[in-house]
Amino acid sequence: MTYNNSCSCYGDDAPIAAIATIAGNSALTLIRCSGKGSLEAVSSVFTANLKTAPDMQKKNTLKNAPGNTVIHGWIAKSGGHGKNAEIIDEVLVSVFRSPKSYTGEDSLDICCHGGSCVGTAVMAALKTAGFRGALAGEFTFRAFMNGKIDLTKSESVMELVCAKTEEGRRHAVSRLCGSLQTEINEIKNMLVSVLAGAEVFLDYCEDEVSTDADEIAGKLPNRGIALAALDRLKKLSLSWQMERVYKEGITCVIAGLPNAGKSSLFNMLLKEDRSIVTEVPGTTRDWIEAWVSIEGIPVRLVDTAGLREPSDSIEKIGIQRSRKLLQEADIVLYLADGGQGLTKEDIEELETYNEERKRYLLLWNKCDIARPPNPAAKHPAPQLPLKDISPICVSAKTGEGLAELCSAISSVISKTTGLMNEPACAAVGTVRQKKLVDAACSALEEALMLTEQDAPLDIIAPLLRDSVNSLGEITGEVSAADILEEMFSKFCVGK
Amino acid sequence: MTYNNSCSCYGDDAPIAAIATIAGNSALTLIRCSGKGSLEAVSSVFTANLKTAPDMQKKNTLKNAPGNTVIHGWIAKSGGHGKNAEIIDEVLVSVFRSPKSYTGEDSLDICCHGGSCVGTAVMAALKTAGFRGALAGEFTFRAFMNGKIDLTKSESVMELVCAKTEEGRRHAVSRLCGSLQTEINEIKNMLVSVLAGAEVFLDYCEDEVSTDADEIAGKLPNRGIALAALDRLKKLSLSWQMERVYKEGITCVIAGLPNAGKSSLFNMLLKEDRSIVTEVPGTTRDWIEAWVSIEGIPVRLVDTAGLREPSDSIEKIGIQRSRKLLQEADIVLYLADGGQGLTKEDIEELETYNEERKRYLLLWNKCDIARPPNPAAKHPAPQLPLKDISPICVSAKTGEGLAELCSAISSVISKTTGLMNEPACAAVGTVRQKKLVDAACSALEEALMLTEQDAPLDIIAPLLRDSVNSLGEITGEVSAADILEEMFSKFCVGK
Repeated sequence: MTYNNSCSCYGDDAPIAAIATIAGNSALTLIRCSGKGSLEAVSSVFTANLKTAPDMQKKNTLKNAPGNTVIHGWIAKSGGHGKNAEIIDEVLVSVFRSPKSYTGEDSLDICCHGGSCVGTAVMAALKTAGFRGALAGEFTFRAFMNGKIDLTKSESVMELVCAKTEEGRRHAVSRLCGSLQTEINEIKNMLVSVLAGAEVFLDYCEDEVSTDADEIAGKLPNRGIALAALDRLKKLSLSWQMERVYKEGITCVIAGLPNAGKSSLFNMLLKEDRSIVTEVPGTTRDWIEAWVSIEGIPVRLVDTAGLREPSDSIEKIGIQRSRKLLQEADIVLYLADGGQGLTKEDIEELETYNEERKRYLLLWNKCDIARPPNPAAKHPAPQLPLKDISPICVSAKTGEGLAELCSAISSVISKTTGLMNEPACAAVGTVRQKKLVDAACSALEEALMLTEQDAPLDIIAPLLRDSVNSLGEITGEVSAADILEEMFSKFCVGK
Repeated sequence: MTYNNSCSCYGDDAPIAAIATIAGNSALTLIRCSGKGSLEAVSSVFTANLKTAPDMQKKNTLKNAPGNTVIHGWIAKSGGHGKNAEIIDEVLVSVFRSPKSYTGEDSLDICCHGGSCVGTAVMAALKTAGFRGALAGEFTFRAFMNGKIDLTKSESVMELVCAKTEEGRRHAVSRLCGSLQTEINEIKNMLVSVLAGAEVFLDYCEDEVSTDADEIAGKLPNRGIALAALDRLKKLSLSWQMERVYKEGITCVIAGLPNAGKSSLFNMLLKEDRSIVTEVPGTTRDWIEAWVSIEGIPVRLVDTAGLREPSDSIEKIGIQRSRKLLQEADIVLYLADGGQGLTKEDIEELETYNEERKRYLLLWNKCDIARPPNPAAKHPAPQLPLKDISPICVSAKTGEGLAELCSAISSVISKTTGLMNEPACAAVGTVRQKKLVDAACSALEEALMLTEQDAPLDIIAPLLRDSVNSLGEITGEVSAADILEEMFSKFCVGK
C-alpha cells in the first residue's frame, strides 16, 4: 500500500470502484464503490425489480435507501431500458451514507456472483455509469483523509491481508484495534508536555527578563517524563525485530551430505504442519522450498542438494546454488546421518558455520536406528569434536524429535529477535513506522544528551519538536497544530 | 453443484457458514452464514463496540438488528470477555431475516479483511459459536427447498460462476432471470391443458357412458397445442449444442510441419485476446495450451510439436502426443509455411483429415512474404491439390488475417452447433435439463404418434403425464399436484 500524496489522482472524491475479492470460481464477488455521486451512479445501472425494469430510473429504491441497509436487485447495462436492459447479475447492494462508511464518503458494496466474468462485467457497467477504477489503497487513503482512521490503522489493514500466519494476524489486528496508535499518542503527549514546558520557559525568559544563554541552560522541565518516553520508544524500536519475522518470515535451509535424509525431513515438516502457506517449487530442480508455520512464525523451508565434492559440472552448479542458499539462511538445519555418525566432511562444514557465526542446529537423523555417541551428556564433546553443540535427535522416518526441533527453531529466533512480544503490547508493524520511531528516538536522545551537557534550551527544544513531529508522522496527524494547542493551553488567559 | 437429497446433512436447518470468496491477498473476504439460530450464534462472537467489549453479550446490537441492515463491529474469540476477548477482525455484518434472505432462513454475510489467515480465524470462531461448514451448494439447496428459486435458477448460479466468457455469462444470467423457467412452465401448461382435456374425456366416458376402447381412440383434444409444445421442446433440446460450447468450450489444435510458425500463431492469438481465461502449461514440454475467448466462445488453444518423421525416440513421443491431441480437436488449425508453399507432407496430412472428416482450417502463414499461388481465385484448385479449401492468409509476424481467422473459427462452430442463440431465447444450460427435455420430448412424440395411429386415450394419457412430469422435474416442482388442480378446475362446480 503506497500513499502517493503527490499524485493528484489520490486527492479527489470522484466515484471509484474496485473488485475487493479475488476473481475466480468462488460463490461471490464483492465490488466496493465510494465517492461523491456514487449512489446516483450505481442507481443508474440498478433495478430493484426485474419485472418493472421499464421503470428502473424512476423508483430510486437505491438512491433513497437509508445508510447501512442492504437492497436486493439487479445490475443492468446502462443505456438499455425496460425489456432491452441487459441484465448483468443479481446482486445485494449495501448502502453506506457519509460519514458513516469506511471511507467517510457515500459508499456501496455490491455483492455479485463469483467467477471470472461476472465481476468484470459489473465493473464495466460501473465504469459506463461514471466510476473509475480505484487506485491501490485508495479507499483506505480516503478513510485516512476523512479522519476515519490514522496511519497505523491504515497500514494494519494491509498487514492483516498479508499476514502469513495466525500469529502474524494477531499482531496486525492489535494495531487495527489501535494498540500502536494509543502508544504513539501517549508517548507523543509526554514529549509535548516536556516541549511545552520548555517553550513556555523560553517565552517567559524572552519576554520578562533580559537573560543570557547560560541562565536557561540545563533547565529542561519534566526531564523524567522525557526519559520515560525514551524508554518506551526504545521498546517500540526493538519490537520491530520480532514483527519483521512475522511479516517477512525467516529462511531455514536444510543442509547435509547426500543421503543424510534431508528430503524426508523437509516432507515431515511439511506434513506435520497444517497451516502451510504455500508451496513453491524451485526454479530449477536443485532445490525445493515451502512456507510452513513453526509456532506461529512463517518459515521458508528450503531443501538443498547434498553438499559434497561435485562429480560433474551439473552437480557443481547444484552445490553452488546450495552454498548461495546457505548464505541467505537465517538458520541452517544441518542434518547428520546418524547411521554414519559425524563424518570428517560434516565437521568441516560445521566449523565453517562457526567461523562465519552462522546460526545453525545440528540434527542427528535416523535416531530410530542409531543414537548419538553419548545422548545422556548434554555436550557429548568427547565423541562430537564440536564444542557447545548438543545435537537434536530426529527421525524423519518415525517423526521422533519433531516437536523438539520446532521449539528449538522458535527458540533460536526468539533469542536473536528479543522476546516474543504479546500482541497486546504495542509494536511497530512497518518499516515506515520503525524509521520514524528511530528518528523520534535519536532526536530525543540527542536532546537529553545536550541537557546533560547543560546546553541551552533553545537548542534542545527544536530536537524535542523533531521527535514529536516524527511521532505525529507515524499516526499521520499534522503535528504543528497540536503542539501549538498544548502550548497555548498552558498560557494564562489573556496573554 | 450436486443436490444430494438422500444425504441427511442437506436436509436440516442447522447454522452453516462458509467462506464465499477465494482466500488470498485480496482486500476483503466474505463469509456467509445461514440457518436456525445463526443470528444468536454470530452475536456470541460479535461486539459492536471495541471499548465496551466487557458488555459484549448484553447489548445484542446484532441480535436485535432488523433485516437488511449492516452492522459494523468486531469478531472476537468466543469465551473471552472484556479486555480478555481476543479480537479477530473488524467486520461489517449484513443481517437478513427469514424469509427475506437468499436461503429464506435467518442469514448473515460477514465481510472481513482479506488474506489467507483472517477468513480462517473468523471461520474458527464461528465454529466454536455453533456453526458447521456448509456443504457444496447448501445455501442454494436451502433456497430451493424454501421455495426461493426453482431448479433452473439454482443451476444458473453455478453456471454464472463457471462462465468462461462474457457470452457464457450472458446465457447463464438469462436463466437466472427465469428465461428457461418461464419457457418450461409455458410448455408444461400447454401439455397440462392437453392432458386435462384427455383425462376429463376419459372420466366422462367411464362415468357416463359404457364404451369400448375404439370409441375414445384418436380423440386427443387440443392436438394442435401438443404439436406446438413439441416444437418448442425440440428447439430447447437443440439449444444445448450451443450452450454446451459456451460451457465446455471447444478444443482448437494448431498443427503443421516444424517451423511453419505454430508457436508464433499461438502467441499472436493469445496476445490479441484480452479476455484470456487461464494459461495452462502442458504436463510435458511437448505441447502448451491456453484458454482464449474467440467471439465469445471459450477456445482451448493447443500448440503441438511439429509433425514429421521422428528423428529420435523423444521426438517420437512428442509426435505421438500431437496425434492424440489432434484426435481430441474440435477444429484443427493447419498451418502451412507460405515460404515453402504446400509440401507433399502437408497435402498427405490434410488428406487424412478429409478421410477422417475432421473439421479443419488451412492457414497460409507468412503471407507477408509469400501469398498463396492464386489468392484471387476463391478455390485456387490448380495450384492447391485439395478441393473445397481456400486457405486463410495469415501472418503471425504482422498480425494480418487474425480477424478473418477468428471469424472463420466462430463460423465453423456455428455451423456445427446450429445458429448462435440469442441469450434472450430460452436454452437449456445443464446436462440434467437437456436429458429431461429429451425425455419430455420423446414421451410427447410417442403420444402424438399413437394419436395418429388412433390408439386409445388411456394409453396416450400416461405418456403425456410422463412428459409433464419430466418438465416438472426440470424446475423442481412436484408435478402431480398441479395436474390435478388444472384437471379439477375444468370440472363443473359441485361435481
